Amino acid sequence: MGVLIEGIKPNVKISISDIQNLLDKRKPKGKLTTKRKENDELVILSGVFEGKTLGSPIVAIVYNKDAKSKDYTDIKDVFRPSHADFTFFKKYGIRDYRGGGRSSGRETVSRVIAGAVAISFLSDKYNIEIISKITQIGPFKTDKWDKTSDNLPFADETQLKDIEKYINSLHGDSIGAIIESRIENLPLGIGEPVFEKLEANIAKAVLSIGATKGIEFGDGFDFANKKGSEVNDQMDKRGFYQIIQVEYWEEYQMEKRLYLEQ
Amino acid sequence: MGVLIEGIKPNVKISISDIQNLLDKRKPKGKLTTKRKENDELVILSGVFEGKTLGSPIVAIVYNKDAKSKDYTDIKDVFRPSHADFTFFKKYGIRDYRGGGRSSGRETVSRVIAGAVAISFLSDKYNIEIISKITQIGPFKTDKWDKTSDNLPFADETQLKDIEKYINSLHGDSIGAIIESRIENLPLGIGEPVFEKLEANIAKAVLSIGATKGIEFGDGFDFANKKGSEVNDQMDKRGFYQIIQVEYWEEYQMEKRLYLEQ
Amino acid sequence: MGVLIEGIKPNVKISISDIQNLLDKRKPKGKLTTKRKENDELVILSGVFEGKTLGSPIVAIVYNKDAKSKDYTDIKDVFRPSHADFTFFKKYGIRDYRGGGRSSGRETVSRVIAGAVAISFLSDKYNIEIISKITQIGPFKTDKWDKTSDNLPFADETQLKDIEKYINSLHGDSIGAIIESRIENLPLGIGEPVFEKLEANIAKAVLSIGATKGIEFGDGFDFANKKGSEVNDQMDKRGFYQIIQVEYWEEYQMEKRLYLEQ
Amino acid sequence: MGVLIEGIKPNVKISISDIQNLLDKRKPKGKLTTKRKENDELVILSGVFEGKTLGSPIVAIVYNKDAKSKDYTDIKDVFRPSHADFTFFKKYGIRDYRGGGRSSGRETVSRVIAGAVAISFLSDKYNIEIISKITQIGPFKTDKWDKTSDNLPFADETQLKDIEKYINSLHGDSIGAIIESRIENLPLGIGEPVFEKLEANIAKAVLSIGATKGIEFGDGFDFANKKGSEVNDQMDKRGFYQIIQVEYWEEYQMEKRLYLEQ
Repeated sequence: MGVLIEGIKPNVKISISDIQNLLDKRKPKGKLTTKRKENDELVILSGVFEGKTLGSPIVAIVYNKDAKSKDYTDIKDVFRPSHADFTFFKKYGIRDYRGGGRSSGRETVSRVIAGAVAISFLSDKYNIEIISKITQIGPFKTDKWDKTSDNLPFADETQLKDIEKYINSLHGDSIGAIIESRIENLPLGIGEPVFEKLEANIAKAVLSIGATKGIEFGDGFDFANKKGSEVNDQMDKRGFYQIIQVEYWEEYQMEKRLYLEQ
Repeated sequence: MGVLIEGIKPNVKISISDIQNLLDKRKPKGKLTTKRKENDELVILSGVFEGKTLGSPIVAIVYNKDAKSKDYTDIKDVFRPSHADFTFFKKYGIRDYRGGGRSSGRETVSRVIAGAVAISFLSDKYNIEIISKITQIGPFKTDKWDKTSDNLPFADETQLKDIEKYINSLHGDSIGAIIESRIENLPLGIGEPVFEKLEANIAKAVLSIGATKGIEFGDGFDFANKKGSEVNDQMDKRGFYQIIQVEYWEEYQMEKRLYLEQ
Repeated sequence: MGVLIEGIKPNVKISISDIQNLLDKRKPKGKLTTKRKENDELVILSGVFEGKTLGSPIVAIVYNKDAKSKDYTDIKDVFRPSHADFTFFKKYGIRDYRGGGRSSGRETVSRVIAGAVAISFLSDKYNIEIISKITQIGPFKTDKWDKTSDNLPFADETQLKDIEKYINSLHGDSIGAIIESRIENLPLGIGEPVFEKLEANIAKAVLSIGATKGIEFGDGFDFANKKGSEVNDQMDKRGFYQIIQVEYWEEYQMEKRLYLEQ
Repeated sequence: MGVLIEGIKPNVKISISDIQNLLDKRKPKGKLTTKRKENDELVILSGVFEGKTLGSPIVAIVYNKDAKSKDYTDIKDVFRPSHADFTFFKKYGIRDYRGGGRSSGRETVSRVIAGAVAISFLSDKYNIEIISKITQIGPFKTDKWDKTSDNLPFADETQLKDIEKYINSLHGDSIGAIIESRIENLPLGIGEPVFEKLEANIAKAVLSIGATKGIEFGDGFDFANKKGSEVNDQMDKRGFYQIIQVEYWEEYQMEKRLYLEQ
């Protein structure tokens, strides 16, 4: 698996160990996920010099060490359920049966590498932080958001033991989940009008991940039962505000406004 | 408002009256929506000759007839809530205060024209049909899908009178809604791997519409409480199938498969 | 004819009369060119407000005033030589025989409008000036570059009367030409490495103009008989320089360098 | 050096030895070019399976074997003349001084690999052949086009010995050249109108190669002294033709046309 990353400015600090940490997080681990062993060791081939980006394309590769000698005869005619194997075979008329290729979950290795570089870039240049937690997994849900438990992806640490018990009881079956992401310190004006809105591009990126089937922003589908007057932002030339008091004097209306810090 | 449409093949039949019908549907109407009068008369400036596309860019315009003489002094410093007025002003440092421009709901005029051309193209060349209905509006929901009531956008005709009563009771406030769309006769293999998946591009297009805050495909967020074994597609070289019977003979497993028509 | 221009920053001054002047220069004029009358009156439909760009797409149109009523029966089956009529007919399978469309020289109306906006933008924001002169037309050539004669496109004013006589003697036939363009105040670093070099993009833009068949930069094809040592730029961290004196002291070589102003 | 190639259809035969042959041709060789030794051994990492393309991106790499251990201290502050070193340093503010990176002539390794794949693709699927020869090198020119001498890049084999003698006499200096390319069996209608004409895109591709300073199509700059009537193609609905005889009968003009095979 590899990735070519364009558009990263020069002189951004890149820590290979930070990327490697995120790759290790992605790896199927222990009891909670599949037993396939993946040893994802990162090599950066271009674009980084003495720990900093050069502004040229960054190529990073995780070489596949043990796959070569394997015998694939038995899976040559097998199509895995819920993968794009069948669609790819019909679309391209040829198939590398040794692995899922771009229809394999292992494709996310490349996304994790690129994501790690993007996180460094956004944090280093713009102080932007992105935090993601699982807020539902099967029957387990939470409204909590436990920022401290950094190594534990479920947002409510107290439910973790029950979740582990539940997943073990699935005996190798998989289970759905919902992830919530928060972006902090995003500057005003990111995204472009009409087709290139920020939410549109985030939605495209997220829905391009295999097996992802929905996305909401803010209250999402709950907006369907809300009135415009309930969800409006108030603003003037100075910024967004809340109306904290309204006074009427004859026909004239006077508001007291509390401006929100940006 | 206008639109420039590229990528439509030559020799596609374009009916101006069909586009005009969809524009008329978009128009704020009668009691159920805002009172602003919009008379959207379509002019096609290029790309169509004797009722057929030429393969060159199609430019279509709805001229704004009565706006010119108006006095805008009183709204020069007003920023409308829940619009991008404030963001645009900060981003561009200049503002055409006479209207919302690209942050106005009227921007969808251009989308409707392009959508009408796309519908003609997809129907004429690929027999693809796209049908959309409202399935929730405020407290009113339905699981029905009433294909016959073409002019009535809510999927369950029996609730329409109650919905009208409810909307009138809002006294000019707006209310959220959920729309369900179905695409029929979509050929296998549309979309490209990794970042250009069909669902990713539909999500981007839909979330680029102002005030849209979420999208789901299939069971969407309900997948969060479903197991892989419940939602898998089964397939082999011949196509997708359902397992209708499994027989075991010694260690050998034999399935009877019902192939689904594509 | 119309044009949609994207990527112009907000708050750039746009003078309609400046654009109109360039459109009038493009118009086939008097004795020296074809007798077709073109009255190119510019209308800007969007993207400009109170003489300044808004940052949104600029749409500008020159409406075709007298063409509508004309009878085209006699040219329905005629294909003009050295135009793309035949290729378009084969490629698209349909043809708007009333005019050349995108294979007509009149397509350059759109380029002139966009070019005029680009010139305003580059001049207003970066102080960049672009000057173009004809340096060969048929048998007439010049090495002069007469900046003062702004309204006369040939770079050597003294030959103009002979050129006019020559063109009249062609009795409606056309004649080739070479144009030289100079860009002043171009900042260092415009263009991107590998495929998006500045010269590559200029070459693409120029060769996309109908009937253009070649482009050279600097000495161009004359470089074929020049040595690397003759045409090298000398530079160090401070900038480009000329070596004005070289001194040797034992084995050490010392250069005196004259730095060129950027 | 590496390359990522997108857009190659599946099931195109790819011969690694064919690509390797072209890489070996590119290599600075023997007496006629620089003495730097380059051992360019190709590894294909993805997109090819059992000698055929999969339709997925092809990644090919030539690993740099002997460069790692070298000491670069002495060239840390050196900027090579006529390279983009200085521009890159100013543009990006950081520089990998160990090599020219994207401003090095070695960048063409990637182009040769991608070109070899493109040649296979065009030949395999469309029967298109592209042949290129040097027609001028320094003072040596030719109008001949010696197709048989495949391994000898100069179009006139009889001048080769004199050219070799001349180049040796340069003592390491370089000399300019002109290359002529011919594309055979190109189908009608390649390229798109206005900005994406075939000649425009070829010009961009060629001028993106370092040290390339001009391009002409057909008669190129010689068109400047030719009349429209001399260079026009004649065509009607059936195709391009030459007028071989014109007869007049009263006022009616009748041409005998010789149609050219396409």
